[in-house]
Amino acid sequence: MNNNNKLKITFLGGVGEIGKNMTAFEYNNEIIIVDCGLTFPGDDLPGVDVVIPDFTYLAANKDKIKALLLTHGHEDHIGGVPFFLQQFSKVPIYGSKLTLALVDHKMREHQKVSYKAITVKPKNVLKIGSFSVEFIKVSHSIAGCLAMCITTPAGSVIHTGDFKIDFEPIDGTMTDLQRFGELGKKGVNLLLCESTNVCRPGYSISEKSVGRALDEIFKAHPDNRLFVATFASNIHRLQQILNLAEKYKRKVAFTGRSMLNIIDVGSKIGEITYNKDIIIDIDKIDKYSDKELLIVTTGSQGEPLSALTRMAMGEFKQIKIGANDVIIFSSSPIPGNEKSVYNVINALFQKGADVIYDELAEVHASGHACQEEIKTIHALVKPKFFMPIHGEYRHLKMHKQLAMMLGMQERNILLPAIGMQVEMSQNSIKKCGVVIAGQRLIDGYGIGDMESNVLKERKQLSEDGICVVGLTVNNVSGDLVGEPFIITRGVVYQDEAEAFVQDTKNMLIASLKEQDLRGCEPAVLRNTVKRAVSNFIFKRTKRKPMVLAIVILD
Amino acid sequence: MNNNNKLKITFLGGVGEIGKNMTAFEYNNEIIIVDCGLTFPGDDLPGVDVVIPDFTYLAANKDKIKALLLTHGHEDHIGGVPFFLQQFSKVPIYGSKLTLALVDHKMREHQKVSYKAITVKPKNVLKIGSFSVEFIKVSHSIAGCLAMCITTPAGSVIHTGDFKIDFEPIDGTMTDLQRFGELGKKGVNLLLCESTNVCRPGYSISEKSVGRALDEIFKAHPDNRLFVATFASNIHRLQQILNLAEKYKRKVAFTGRSMLNIIDVGSKIGEITYNKDIIIDIDKIDKYSDKELLIVTTGSQGEPLSALTRMAMGEFKQIKIGANDVIIFSSSPIPGNEKSVYNVINALFQKGADVIYDELAEVHASGHACQEEIKTIHALVKPKFFMPIHGEYRHLKMHKQLAMMLGMQERNILLPAIGMQVEMSQNSIKKCGVVIAGQRLIDGYGIGDMESNVLKERKQLSEDGICVVGLTVNNVSGDLVGEPFIITRGVVYQDEAEAFVQDTKNMLIASLKEQDLRGCEPAVLRNTVKRAVSNFIFKRTKRKPMVLAIVILD
Repeated sequence: MNNNNKLKITFLGGVGEIGKNMTAFEYNNEIIIVDCGLTFPGDDLPGVDVVIPDFTYLAANKDKIKALLLTHGHEDHIGGVPFFLQQFSKVPIYGSKLTLALVDHKMREHQKVSYKAITVKPKNVLKIGSFSVEFIKVSHSIAGCLAMCITTPAGSVIHTGDFKIDFEPIDGTMTDLQRFGELGKKGVNLLLCESTNVCRPGYSISEKSVGRALDEIFKAHPDNRLFVATFASNIHRLQQILNLAEKYKRKVAFTGRSMLNIIDVGSKIGEITYNKDIIIDIDKIDKYSDKELLIVTTGSQGEPLSALTRMAMGEFKQIKIGANDVIIFSSSPIPGNEKSVYNVINALFQKGADVIYDELAEVHASGHACQEEIKTIHALVKPKFFMPIHGEYRHLKMHKQLAMMLGMQERNILLPAIGMQVEMSQNSIKKCGVVIAGQRLIDGYGIGDMESNVLKERKQLSEDGICVVGLTVNNVSGDLVGEPFIITRGVVYQDEAEAFVQDTKNMLIASLKEQDLRGCEPAVLRNTVKRAVSNFIFKRTKRKPMVLAIVILD
Repeated sequence: MNNNNKLKITFLGGVGEIGKNMTAFEYNNEIIIVDCGLTFPGDDLPGVDVVIPDFTYLAANKDKIKALLLTHGHEDHIGGVPFFLQQFSKVPIYGSKLTLALVDHKMREHQKVSYKAITVKPKNVLKIGSFSVEFIKVSHSIAGCLAMCITTPAGSVIHTGDFKIDFEPIDGTMTDLQRFGELGKKGVNLLLCESTNVCRPGYSISEKSVGRALDEIFKAHPDNRLFVATFASNIHRLQQILNLAEKYKRKVAFTGRSMLNIIDVGSKIGEITYNKDIIIDIDKIDKYSDKELLIVTTGSQGEPLSALTRMAMGEFKQIKIGANDVIIFSSSPIPGNEKSVYNVINALFQKGADVIYDELAEVHASGHACQEEIKTIHALVKPKFFMPIHGEYRHLKMHKQLAMMLGMQERNILLPAIGMQVEMSQNSIKKCGVVIAGQRLIDGYGIGDMESNVLKERKQLSEDGICVVGLTVNNVSGDLVGEPFIITRGVVYQDEAEAFVQDTKNMLIASLKEQDLRGCEPAVLRNTVKRAVSNFIFKRTKRKPMVLAIVILD
């Protein structure tokens, strides 16, 4: 393939959100990839564990792949890396110190594969074949986030990654607005800008203002046992919480595997610093009074097996929730999790605890830019072309409108789609194709495209249950041998089960007596049985369980 | 049972929300009931159709029941009536004209049972035994809503039902603040006040302001085909939409069974009025140009089978969505529905339509009172005792705090719970017991307490699938007769299925050969087979499907 001096961009990832998870940049037979994330499936994919991008296109272009660049360490940007390395083990991976430390931890959990990881920093410029990639510091809800300016002879592209503008960043280094401006001044062909919060007017609140709100709560509850539930990956939030523990002389006990992991990884590489003396083991909390304790936990999304949910349900060995407990949800429900989160909050209230959550106080800040922040980036970069990325279609559409309000011509804006390929030159951008892309469903050990029949079957099973009917027929006489057996699961309630099974049997025996079954084909008989039983159950229960018929010829 | 001049209040309904759906008031061996609603189950109850209150307590006190009083016609307040009348067919039902018309429609859909329905109006006072019940006009998101003042020798109770204070009501009659004040002045013992929006500061917006926002949209899109999706039961919203159609000279086509039903019921009883000429059948829309059309539809919650969802997916025969369409969601997502709603919005955008929803414009007003409205009711009624009702526990808790901020003593506030009984006299209120209450799960035709085993089974089926294993053993020789048969559903993907089944068979044959099966008990053999197959599948797939073993002795 010849690129004709054009840069080809392929959007490979995305379930629900578009232009996320994984994007390939191709110039002159070389490919560099930005991110390789996973998503967690909703209730429409029962039993699916995770969803990763489809690698079909990459496999077909395996030899061209020169690098995988990671914007930051969230699962939706690095979660697919172990699967990627299974297939493309020679591709070097670039990312910030924290991002790579998180990848490393992930790789040690999976089967061991050796791979090449190279740490990069803001302002570093990387030469990879015809590509030059400059990394730009951005703020977000995890440390070590990088936007990228990808330059080729076809022009330069700025990919924001996930970002916000935080004027009071915890690590003291702001989203590098100046550099966005400088690059814009030099001329940027294409801006790829995230769209998560594009429907929210104004500015996101700063991480430090969350710290101040938490400080107020610590101050107001000197005698209570305090709990903070938050996202494990939000290192700056954890840093602030640890600072408050020190200020208010409380010992900190962490619960939740991912929380312990991030603290371990983060402190090893110096992204989080604290006095080791203030950390105690969760098994040791009995030695301290309530006012000396702070418990930091995962489970802010109401995850059923998390420490916090188990505390709320009274199933956590070391901690019984009571009237002297104050639990702060330093988080907000991810769309789709609202019910689970409020169930946990209600359960905690019912155990007598006081619960403070984002509806009641400013205890969480989003990591994504709101409208005015997005406008700021547009105004600094002033790109020739623009593609909104990282959002549902409604967000991309809104982001397009916002760019037009800022003066961009509609013809210079393209909306991405899953699998879309665009070609960019100095003076043009256009759609040039569609490749196989989107979701691969991962289920237990299996990696593969889970077919819709499996999911359909699981759905039917979950809604109406199953009825297995077996019978033996003497092929010569055509008579039933013995009684049919019937097993149901998830169809009828225990007190009706016996009568139900007996009635179904009687119906089936009567119905088969009317037919001559001598020399009958098993497949035909199976269908007859299936239909008779399905109809009978539907009449009786208005339900359509899956019916499996087993016919044995004697 | 002797009431000792006390009023007993029993909270019989509620899933998720407490003090909702159904409440019984008992004095001197007479019971009157307020509301009989249903709720729709979440994903945690797969295959359950609806959930109604448990009638066990009422059945045990059947002869005492004198009346069922309905506050308004929403499903969560009247949906259980047909089930109630199956058991308590002699109990007369009281409600507003619209509420009873909706009950009547519902009864005609169910099996025919004759029952007694009595229409009441605001300011009516009803004498039922020792009870005197006065109905008070309130605004909400459906017409014909009534609060109640229930008076007995033990004192009077105000039950707000669902309400808001709308200063510009569509029907011209406001929530009767004066009467709340008068009753308060005379002395109210207990206030039962709804809590849905108690976490929202300020005032709810008025229904008329929604009308003004819709008017702006109609005005701004003179040439587009317009769609409005809203809740069928919101008669005042529909009235405003019909008025706009007339003003902008558009014909109105309704889609969605519940929408057609409410228009039919509402116009018969005069709750909604319009020029019949403007209504056209959905099959006739081809005769009109886009700018002459307004399509009013259900499906604002992203319900999979609704007309709007089918339009968005391109599966609605009469309507193809395109670039000249403007679709207004005059609604907001009910918690838990966010994902489905945004899926539909994204799909409509992707078909080129413009979509206007509550994040982007003031096209919906909640029907529930916000903080300042709730405070107004408290200030007018000034009850001796207070119980927050109709909310999750976190709402009740917040409502309690709000009442205390307004000056109530904590000891005069009680939080209800499902099944809780309280006893009220002129000078006291206290918890006096707990009765069987809560949810009855309705699934197809069945009415009964669905046991958790059924739900557990359905969940397992939906997450990991099922594997049915059958084998015939000669009881004398202990040999397998023929091959085992294995059927799986929702376990493995099609391309692996054959190999998987063969390997499982081989494993099973090998494993059984090692054992002496002569004279073996079927139950024991079943367990052996089940365990062997479960372990084999788990090792291979990390999944735990339900395994059913069938053993036939030959």
